[in-house]
Amino acid sequence: QSAGSVRSFISPFPASSPTPPICQEMHRLQSIAARSLMAGALEPSRNGKAREKTLTMETLNPQVKAVEYAVRGPIVIKAGEIERILQEGGKKPFTEVIKANIGDAHAMGQQPITFLRQVVALCTFPELLDSPSFPEDAKRRAQRILQGCGGRSLGSYSASQGVDCIRQDIAAYIEQRDQGVPSNWENIFLTTGASDGIVSILRLLVSGEGRARTGVMIPIPQYPLYSAAIAELGAVQVNYYLDEDNCWALDVHELHRAYQAAKQHCQPRVLCIINPGNPTGQVQSKKCIEDVLHFAYEENLFVMADEVYQENVYAPDCEFHSFKKVLYEMGPEYFNSVELASFHSTSKGYTGECGFRGGFMEIVNLDPEVKAQLVKLLSVRLCPPVAGQAAMDVIVNPPQPDEPSFAQFHKEKASVLGALADKAKLTEQILSAVPGIKCNPVQGAMYAFPQIFIPPRAVEEAKALGMQPDMLYCLRLLEETGICVVPGSGFGQREGTYHFRYGSIFFACNYLVILIKREFH
Amino acid sequence: QSAGSVRSFISPFPASSPTPPICQEMHRLQSIAARSLMAGALEPSRNGKAREKTLTMETLNPQVKAVEYAVRGPIVIKAGEIERILQEGGKKPFTEVIKANIGDAHAMGQQPITFLRQVVALCTFPELLDSPSFPEDAKRRAQRILQGCGGRSLGSYSASQGVDCIRQDIAAYIEQRDQGVPSNWENIFLTTGASDGIVSILRLLVSGEGRARTGVMIPIPQYPLYSAAIAELGAVQVNYYLDEDNCWALDVHELHRAYQAAKQHCQPRVLCIINPGNPTGQVQSKKCIEDVLHFAYEENLFVMADEVYQENVYAPDCEFHSFKKVLYEMGPEYFNSVELASFHSTSKGYTGECGFRGGFMEIVNLDPEVKAQLVKLLSVRLCPPVAGQAAMDVIVNPPQPDEPSFAQFHKEKASVLGALADKAKLTEQILSAVPGIKCNPVQGAMYAFPQIFIPPRAVEEAKALGMQPDMLYCLRLLEETGICVVPGSGFGQREGTYHFRYGSIFFACNYLVILIKREFH
Repeated sequence: QSAGSVRSFISPFPASSPTPPICQEMHRLQSIAARSLMAGALEPSRNGKAREKTLTMETLNPQVKAVEYAVRGPIVIKAGEIERILQEGGKKPFTEVIKANIGDAHAMGQQPITFLRQVVALCTFPELLDSPSFPEDAKRRAQRILQGCGGRSLGSYSASQGVDCIRQDIAAYIEQRDQGVPSNWENIFLTTGASDGIVSILRLLVSGEGRARTGVMIPIPQYPLYSAAIAELGAVQVNYYLDEDNCWALDVHELHRAYQAAKQHCQPRVLCIINPGNPTGQVQSKKCIEDVLHFAYEENLFVMADEVYQENVYAPDCEFHSFKKVLYEMGPEYFNSVELASFHSTSKGYTGECGFRGGFMEIVNLDPEVKAQLVKLLSVRLCPPVAGQAAMDVIVNPPQPDEPSFAQFHKEKASVLGALADKAKLTEQILSAVPGIKCNPVQGAMYAFPQIFIPPRAVEEAKALGMQPDMLYCLRLLEETGICVVPGSGFGQREGTYHFRYGSIFFACNYLVILIKREFH
Repeated sequence: QSAGSVRSFISPFPASSPTPPICQEMHRLQSIAARSLMAGALEPSRNGKAREKTLTMETLNPQVKAVEYAVRGPIVIKAGEIERILQEGGKKPFTEVIKANIGDAHAMGQQPITFLRQVVALCTFPELLDSPSFPEDAKRRAQRILQGCGGRSLGSYSASQGVDCIRQDIAAYIEQRDQGVPSNWENIFLTTGASDGIVSILRLLVSGEGRARTGVMIPIPQYPLYSAAIAELGAVQVNYYLDEDNCWALDVHELHRAYQAAKQHCQPRVLCIINPGNPTGQVQSKKCIEDVLHFAYEENLFVMADEVYQENVYAPDCEFHSFKKVLYEMGPEYFNSVELASFHSTSKGYTGECGFRGGFMEIVNLDPEVKAQLVKLLSVRLCPPVAGQAAMDVIVNPPQPDEPSFAQFHKEKASVLGALADKAKLTEQILSAVPGIKCNPVQGAMYAFPQIFIPPRAVEEAKALGMQPDMLYCLRLLEETGICVVPGSGFGQREGTYHFRYGSIFFACNYLVILIKREFH
């Protein structure tokens, strides 16, 4: 029954749906800030002639203009407007906007891990170290972190690379995760979320002009941080396509094709991989990672492994393999040579602590002088938020079996990961049952990226409106159902195919609630 | 007596001081990361030929290479090394390194404001809302902030501009600070420290090529975030010199001179002001701010007002005037026209909460379409740390007279600001008493920027070593006394003059303790 009702309202362009004047709407949304109270671009001057603004769309940094970031784009602005209308008592065919545009677990009601919050609260307000209501293991963690902070305060700047003892804990965690592969804590850098690390490394790598300009290979579909950073840095985006028919697997032949094609007009120097995949949810096999690393070795590419979903693997036949571990197992020739940066975050996994902006990167085989340059670059922004660093420390240094918080911590962790796995399965099942939608299994991460088959007439309609067909679809889905998803065009997709990214973390809770509301109100 | 002993060891280049082989030392420090365990830049490949690294000093982004950031530069690396030597029992002519290189109050023992930490701890661990040991006003603040957060959790991403209710509190604070000048909360953007906001605005403003390239006018001496960001963005740095003989005042004739000179080779479009001054400690008069704004109006410059030290005014004859308020008082022709971004932070003032990376900017008269572009740009990095936003909220929304925490809050605030004022005075007095050093009054902020008269022979010696004379002075000061200060060359200074920046927050505590230790051990 529930699959049937889903079908009734998210099947692409049912014949009955009217066509709103949606083109003007898009333009309106794109310059939405016009609603502010500020005056226009021209002001009268004392001598009668208009005084021009210094900063206009004409004088704006063109690389900023080139940036696109769909995850918080026009659809999300529209969703915010509808939310305000509902709050003010306005009527819509639904009672709540479901923001499935972003992987923000707490916003959808996931509870924080108690131990993590206890440690951060103790660090924030050390008077609580005397409180009997906090467990001893949380206090030990907090005391250790504070000892690593200047003045024993979260309020001091840390070293630009992060607090030393947290870097050491991260290295120990990586060694354990990778079953003994050595990790040197001086190669660990705390970051402001993983995004900060990814942009910092890309920043180092962009150089050259014309055909010598740095090309950055990214998967398509991709998480749009990559295309945004590439545009802003003026690098060349080199697309390699994931194989949708093969559960979004990465095919090394496609890497070769993309590399050779790109060499005609730029110098590909960086290979970005997202594993588990965002927005595609696939988990790479060990064999596939070996192939990728071999390719990077041969072609002298710097590898950036976005592994923020490393704890989010649901499919029983899949397992997370870190790029670093696979590189190690390929032998010292590879392990001592391929330049690899890998990224992690407090925002995903089972903690979902996005707001703390915690994260780290491990960088191996970086040229020592370049490493000094990286430290210098990070120093300009002083340090990552220290509370986020403390949150990261809990993730890499969780309660041990002999500690008082062990049982509760693992219960909470298992509960979150279990719910995420259930929702991933349900997402795939429900979406696959809708005619006109095809959905690969969600093996990991937090999203499905289903293909939608949009009828040719609707495609033409969208094109006549100067809009991507999947953007039109998502706008209409939002207006009719209150469900906010991001169109595939924001992530990239093969020409002529259409998708959307759906945060699978929303299923089985609010999503189904909405269904029920719709069917019965 | 204390002035006498200061004289004995920080007077520039006393005849007795030996000359260490300091040139090699500098080179060593500049590539200090070479001490890491990583392999060198070349690795043997399976077929015998060396496999080159992808990312080397030759291929590194040249704009990254051009960045300099003295506040955490070679001197600070050396200070860290000496600290390690002392920790390991090594002998030095002192027992402790005094890191006066950075304005980090907590690192030097300043205590956090209790109310601020209570609110952030309550937000972090809401179970504490039931605890009788937290005051009701702190709980009210925390509940309000949490209601503004997705899922009522600090762990959710906020809007990219920050949590709405915090933006509203900031606007109310600004209106009160500026005695009724209107502030629209939709013009307020929370940031990751003030640095993040400053770099984001500069990023928008950089465009054009050759003579049309954006020129950014900055004071000399400046806080090196500005020169670093300008180098990284490939903009043109346009220096205007502060008047050292007139207590580092900003002279509008010098602005005109710098602007006209720069127009020959770039398009000056941005004027940066730091008030109260960093590293120079001056507080601008209202008349001076009017002159500056009039100049910006005439020359169509975007004004960036770095006002992070707005609470740090010590001289009895000085007062903080915000650029926005002065602009308002100049009349609607100015107030509705000059594009102005002003910046604030949790890191300075009386809170000194650097590690939380809290801050905000208010932007007036921004073109609405450009504002939408700014929101887009900020969205790529998702949001500023939410705990830092909560800390910012306490600063703009402190306890009121009828609230239980009022008395303690104001006692703590007055105590911190009183101590800072005492230290500023003492800094000036002690430094002025040293022959060869000339120090302007520290009217505000947290630093003195004394001039040091380095004998010609020592200048030649430094030049022979390929080093700035004040860098040599600071290195030797560090080696002989353990005091870590940043040379004036890192901030900029008139050719042939030499300075260092001294964090005045260190005086009267550790600094004098060191003196006593030196004299009596």
